[in-house]
Amino acid sequence: MRHYSGQRRMLLAVDCIIFGFDGKDIKLLLIQRGLKPEQNKWSLMGGFLQPDETLDESANRILKQLTGIEGVYMEQLHAFSNINRDPIERTVSVAYFALIDIHQYETQLNDEYHAEWFLLNKKTRLIFDHEDMVRLAQKQLRYKAALHPILFELLPEKFTIPQLQDLYEGVYDAMFDKRNFTRKLMSTGLLIKMKGKDKSSSKKGAYYYKLDKKKYRIKQASFLNFVSKAEKFL
Amino acid sequence: MRHYSGQRRMLLAVDCIIFGFDGKDIKLLLIQRGLKPEQNKWSLMGGFLQPDETLDESANRILKQLTGIEGVYMEQLHAFSNINRDPIERTVSVAYFALIDIHQYETQLNDEYHAEWFLLNKKTRLIFDHEDMVRLAQKQLRYKAALHPILFELLPEKFTIPQLQDLYEGVYDAMFDKRNFTRKLMSTGLLIKMKGKDKSSSKKGAYYYKLDKKKYRIKQASFLNFVSKAEKFL
Repeated sequence: MRHYSGQRRMLLAVDCIIFGFDGKDIKLLLIQRGLKPEQNKWSLMGGFLQPDETLDESANRILKQLTGIEGVYMEQLHAFSNINRDPIERTVSVAYFALIDIHQYETQLNDEYHAEWFLLNKKTRLIFDHEDMVRLAQKQLRYKAALHPILFELLPEKFTIPQLQDLYEGVYDAMFDKRNFTRKLMSTGLLIKMKGKDKSSSKKGAYYYKLDKKKYRIKQASFLNFVSKAEKFL
Repeated sequence: MRHYSGQRRMLLAVDCIIFGFDGKDIKLLLIQRGLKPEQNKWSLMGGFLQPDETLDESANRILKQLTGIEGVYMEQLHAFSNINRDPIERTVSVAYFALIDIHQYETQLNDEYHAEWFLLNKKTRLIFDHEDMVRLAQKQLRYKAALHPILFELLPEKFTIPQLQDLYEGVYDAMFDKRNFTRKLMSTGLLIKMKGKDKSSSKKGAYYYKLDKKKYRIKQASFLNFVSKAEKFL
């Protein structure tokens, strides 16, 4: 085996940021760190990159080992490299993130694991630079959700406008004007009004909608407005 | 000094993708690799992360050492981790990219260095996975340029619409309809028409424009259309 000489090798870690929506709130999945330092403090799901795996594979393995969750598409976010980010030894960490429907993974995420969902907008103190990682993932999620209808996939088959608004308000940690929000939603042409109404939250009730999946598939990439059909170049 | 035990340390590299515009074409800066394997083959500017630097610092050091160029804002793109991407030994590489005005860096990029500009759209064979890196950077550039007026910064103080169109066509490697392109440009409200005309490329001439810098500063982030004023959350 040949090697590059005179170069220092370092530890590479992977940390997973999993956002979840439970129909009402946006949450963040955390575990208690299993090793020193900061043992038992709240942490993202992290581990070291192994010689026989890529970063993507590593992220999936770590998430499964620590939470039981598998089959989630995680996106690579950013490599964090502050020199003293890990007090034990120099470790560069590549953060991954995903947004999932909490109910869909309930059976995977069982009591065997000690992972817990925390309200995202009620900040929890995390180890190392994990709060920076979460902040960047949140920024990226907001950017994507403003351009692409990605949040629609987190809702059940039938949903109401107030439910969708709760979701957007959770992601942006802000209140949106109801009329404007509804108007913009309708202008996307992605929603199909159904006959029934949800009467659980108000007397008047809220109509159920479903996603126009055909249009959704077409519109997913076509948010671009300056360069026409720019999505075909992506 | 404490260490994590039982973990394999690896090499971490940084590779820099520098796109440039010379007023006519989009180009890619390359060097001939200085060490084995693939010695003398065309390569991105790369090197190993050192113990005393962050990835951002490393990217800037490497670019300066290999090309003389400094003071360029490079954005972190992606960490590439295929197991055999470097045939000598496992090396994970973090790619950075930037788009610069070639003329602005002409004096820095002198003959002392052996860096050369290549036409981006005339693919050059590169070492390792560097072609994948360039492809991803190009995709990212197209995404950003479709949403934000970032390309306007590459033009001289006074420019014509055909010049701007050349730039967009270079980035997207496509031809745009002249009338549509002009209409979209004008609708941004970012251009101020000047009195003089450039008569060098046609008899009729093309009006000079300049960027409305105040509007540009405001509009830079406000591309978002679904969530109103979403940029304030980014």
